Amino acid sequence: MAEEDKLASLRSLMASHSPPLHALVVPSEDYHQSEYVSARDKRRAFISGFTGSAGLALVTMEEARLWTDGRYFLQAAQELNDQWKLMRMGEDPPVDIWMADNLPKDAAIGVDPWCVSVDTAQKWERAFSKKQQKLIQTPRNLVDEVWISRPPLELNPVAVHPPQFSGRSVADKLKDLRENLVQEKARGILITTLDEVAWLYNIRGTDVSYCPVVHAFAVVTLYSAFLYVDQRKLSSEVNIVMKENGIEVRDYGAVTSDVTLLASDQLKPISSTNATRASISESGHHNNNSSSTNFIWVDPGTCCFALYSKLNANEVFLQQSPLALAKALKNPVEMDGLKKAHIRDGAAVVQYLVWLDKQMQELYGASGYFLEVENIKKDVNTIRLTEVSASDKLEQFRASKEHFRGLSFPTISSVGPNAAIIHYSPDAKSCADLDPNSIYLFDSGAQYLDGTTDITRTVHFGKPTKHEKACYTAVLKGHIALGNAQFPSGTNGNTLDVLARIPLWKYGLDYRHGTGHGIGSYLNVHEGPHQISFRPAARNVPLQASMTVTDEPGYYEDGNFGIRLENVLIIKEADTEFNFDDKGYLTFEHITWAPYQTKLIDFSLLVPEEIEWLNNYHSKCSDILAPYLDESEKAWLKKATQPVCVC
Amino acid sequence: MAEEDKLASLRSLMASHSPPLHALVVPSEDYHQSEYVSARDKRRAFISGFTGSAGLALVTMEEARLWTDGRYFLQAAQELNDQWKLMRMGEDPPVDIWMADNLPKDAAIGVDPWCVSVDTAQKWERAFSKKQQKLIQTPRNLVDEVWISRPPLELNPVAVHPPQFSGRSVADKLKDLRENLVQEKARGILITTLDEVAWLYNIRGTDVSYCPVVHAFAVVTLYSAFLYVDQRKLSSEVNIVMKENGIEVRDYGAVTSDVTLLASDQLKPISSTNATRASISESGHHNNNSSSTNFIWVDPGTCCFALYSKLNANEVFLQQSPLALAKALKNPVEMDGLKKAHIRDGAAVVQYLVWLDKQMQELYGASGYFLEVENIKKDVNTIRLTEVSASDKLEQFRASKEHFRGLSFPTISSVGPNAAIIHYSPDAKSCADLDPNSIYLFDSGAQYLDGTTDITRTVHFGKPTKHEKACYTAVLKGHIALGNAQFPSGTNGNTLDVLARIPLWKYGLDYRHGTGHGIGSYLNVHEGPHQISFRPAARNVPLQASMTVTDEPGYYEDGNFGIRLENVLIIKEADTEFNFDDKGYLTFEHITWAPYQTKLIDFSLLVPEEIEWLNNYHSKCSDILAPYLDESEKAWLKKATQPVCVC
Repeated sequence: MAEEDKLASLRSLMASHSPPLHALVVPSEDYHQSEYVSARDKRRAFISGFTGSAGLALVTMEEARLWTDGRYFLQAAQELNDQWKLMRMGEDPPVDIWMADNLPKDAAIGVDPWCVSVDTAQKWERAFSKKQQKLIQTPRNLVDEVWISRPPLELNPVAVHPPQFSGRSVADKLKDLRENLVQEKARGILITTLDEVAWLYNIRGTDVSYCPVVHAFAVVTLYSAFLYVDQRKLSSEVNIVMKENGIEVRDYGAVTSDVTLLASDQLKPISSTNATRASISESGHHNNNSSSTNFIWVDPGTCCFALYSKLNANEVFLQQSPLALAKALKNPVEMDGLKKAHIRDGAAVVQYLVWLDKQMQELYGASGYFLEVENIKKDVNTIRLTEVSASDKLEQFRASKEHFRGLSFPTISSVGPNAAIIHYSPDAKSCADLDPNSIYLFDSGAQYLDGTTDITRTVHFGKPTKHEKACYTAVLKGHIALGNAQFPSGTNGNTLDVLARIPLWKYGLDYRHGTGHGIGSYLNVHEGPHQISFRPAARNVPLQASMTVTDEPGYYEDGNFGIRLENVLIIKEADTEFNFDDKGYLTFEHITWAPYQTKLIDFSLLVPEEIEWLNNYHSKCSDILAPYLDESEKAWLKKATQPVCVC
Repeated sequence: MAEEDKLASLRSLMASHSPPLHALVVPSEDYHQSEYVSARDKRRAFISGFTGSAGLALVTMEEARLWTDGRYFLQAAQELNDQWKLMRMGEDPPVDIWMADNLPKDAAIGVDPWCVSVDTAQKWERAFSKKQQKLIQTPRNLVDEVWISRPPLELNPVAVHPPQFSGRSVADKLKDLRENLVQEKARGILITTLDEVAWLYNIRGTDVSYCPVVHAFAVVTLYSAFLYVDQRKLSSEVNIVMKENGIEVRDYGAVTSDVTLLASDQLKPISSTNATRASISESGHHNNNSSSTNFIWVDPGTCCFALYSKLNANEVFLQQSPLALAKALKNPVEMDGLKKAHIRDGAAVVQYLVWLDKQMQELYGASGYFLEVENIKKDVNTIRLTEVSASDKLEQFRASKEHFRGLSFPTISSVGPNAAIIHYSPDAKSCADLDPNSIYLFDSGAQYLDGTTDITRTVHFGKPTKHEKACYTAVLKGHIALGNAQFPSGTNGNTLDVLARIPLWKYGLDYRHGTGHGIGSYLNVHEGPHQISFRPAARNVPLQASMTVTDEPGYYEDGNFGIRLENVLIIKEADTEFNFDDKGYLTFEHITWAPYQTKLIDFSLLVPEEIEWLNNYHSKCSDILAPYLDESEKAWLKKATQPVCVC
């Protein structure tokens, strides 16, 4: 369907809607407020043409606008056609303010209430109240109705995530959750986030590319537990685990009527099992005074407005799901798995670098990873290496590793100016060739049964400019400063963000993205509830021991190049000489292993402490990865991690 | 009056109050929400015995509690008698939560509405609503009634702060203010903060120790301006300036009835002058549609609840006073004055150090400022040097300088363990002797006609321990890191606070106070609206060029010693190589001049960049102060600022 036809069809549906809609909001999110969504849920990408992971489309009868954040300004500008106007978050007014200011008084503004969170819908309603505008919950998704070739429903198998990887039984997780409920006087909780459902019930699937989750909802009460999922997907093993834990499996669509029953305390399991009874009596908190536990816990940041609307507002306890923090605090088995997965992943990255170094020399006559010589570009008519063919090779190296289950996000493989597009996703048809005279940035990760990975390295196979080296070194200094920080317990990630920026700010440089996110244990590559960012967090969750977090500052020069360095860190107790105020101090442990290209470092800009850290990291890197490499790869890594003299 | 009698008398007044009060809150603040208050306004100190600058007393029929912050934990513990319980802010529940939780349902909780801000009173009322407790505005101050020997009303002269120091005329300031009013659709503003009144009308006085302010209120409307002050204090010069600017002078007490008139738009000047008419027509915004400017601007953080209660709540525009930011952005004349005042002040500090060095050697046989030798304590029966007698000498040096008008806060002159009391104020009768084997910390400042100063240095006249040196060096590293930061426009002080803490956190050390505050131009030593602190600011005011701010990290070891280093900085545009996002980058200029004691620095812990900064600062310090010193002082300073080799 032509772009114009899509918008015309949508506008005709908006006009015939009752009431007629002045505007329709099309968010990026699916029914579970996911960051990555399945093909059939990419409604915003379908309607706008913009394929980035974050953004929001607004279609009025006259115009169409797309809001996205700094990571995607360049990409969106390229992908949007002239029917669309790009709205830059942080520079242009936010969508709710824009709508309140620019749409007429009394305007009816439609949204599919399954695709918008309680927090967002309520914020919009507040903004709209000034001009008596109304947020209309459309009874069906209007984009779906114009999307004729919408991909069909997935029917992907759901598997049990076994104890040797999950590290904690469903029974124990349910027990903890029910203790949280009793503590907050809640009789039940509605779990809508896909990774929370997967984590709680120890199940994994492939419904969404890159995220091993299952399209499902869960409801847990003090006395019962439910899983809402297309039952055709479940293996018999999953059914057994559900039964053992007193979890009743119901159809995905049944969640609507069940939440209505939950509201009036009428939701009962058909079969009450021993497990259910056991888990309640074990929790030891149960009493018959139901008035003391009368709330339904709903996470307003992730629960869709549609389901929330089925509950009695005065009986809803609106607070972040306790599973967000529980999931973020990795247990010893998860921690061990994550470390192992990162070692295998690091080996794949090194193998890729070795291969790439050879290719760049052979195909393009590059001086290579180690030598710093201006390259004369070879004529390469026959064999080409592109951003996509290169990253396919990287995937092959990863796929050869134990427990590999796929990538954890679309690989960012970007040459020169493309590297300045923060979330660049190369397209096989149009992507650039590798270039021996340009910076090459790759940000990639994989899903392994024992852990999720995410790593970024930036390299050059010829002679980097003085400016590129200065920028690389500033990014590296920030990366080291953050990764080496020691801080008192209770410190928020927002407080530490500046450490990664100070070396860039010194030159008047900066980057338009946050500095770190949590990472799942064979789950989503982006995970809360903590973060390291200059943007204030919606919820102020301090960094805590046994959380994972990335350390990924960068610098992006539009039209020229981009630099980013990213490791995954685990937060652990610090062994400080003192312990002022008995707060307990925390620090980071790097679990990502791959060399930084020393050719890109201007060592005159590093202080001895930084050089020592680099030497120490490189030495460990070489030792840890050696068992996974062949002799020539080992030799290459030895050279890449040679200690630098601290003079 | 004995301590017990005070509380007994107060409780008897509380019981006979209508309604009888379950509790009475006694805040530190005066009618203007001042940090430093005059002797007759020290109600909280009178009733509790705790003399620190910040705190809040709560007296119930059964008990008495005092809340204060981390700076004062040690001091309050020493000063409070056993009738009082110390409540530690940040550790114990805040006062409103404590009252709501611990006072009975329906309790009547009294407060003098002149001594509490709108923000605070409203916050308490919200906390109280859960248990139907009531905040009762007492019609008179109950502490005043039991305070038989309360100091009499001050009758201190008020002077004009002339253009060569203020840099901007009252007419211009009023014009700007009226533009702010029109912009926010306000027809008037109530100004209750003493430094804002003094700044706006270019007047100064001595009503409050350390702050050259005048007990006064101001009201400014689009068409009129009023000053509420005891008219006996005004010089004829002040009266002329007021008249020239169309400011009507009325009695201090008239503010109550005038604010009532303001509420109903009945407040009119008796004499309409040319100046008033001129300033309105000049602003160019005046129109006759009064409905478009119907609000009264009130700063909820500083306006007392008593005056706010006279206004119609739905016609009040509650927002920080525009004068807070206007006052913080120093004009070129103020900036020039501040720099000059800090040079004279630095000279006084160096003279003090020279004198102290000599005294310590002569009286106590100390090795002195430069030599690092364990001292054998001399018998000093005849001549003693105490924390108070030493700081009196420092005041003498300052008093000899041009434009000196007094100290800007009570000098903190503290030896050994006393230096660990963050806001220690030595008492002539009980204070400690100087000690050649202990750290000596002095934090002091003065009021000069051309600027206010605030500086802290920490010194040792014998052999500091390795631990003391490591701590001093960590504090210095934080002090340098913050003072050298370059940051994009729009950055908040809270973001930078961590830079001063990171070197301490490395050892598991920290300090329980913020890192920086604004400083006035011959006004209050503590000035908002910006700050550098780990505590989130009530209002998020970014750091801006031409603001002043202190840089004062520290470390305090209870019972042993304290370290703090403080300079005043001016925020200015940075000359960065690049300007990413066209944000504009900012940096700091140090305007405080006095040496850091190199004997206390462990240079092995500094990086070359820090040593270079120190050498550069010391070199400038020596050059800038030389013209104010005699030959022997110059020689001493030369030695104290000798460059250290960067090896």
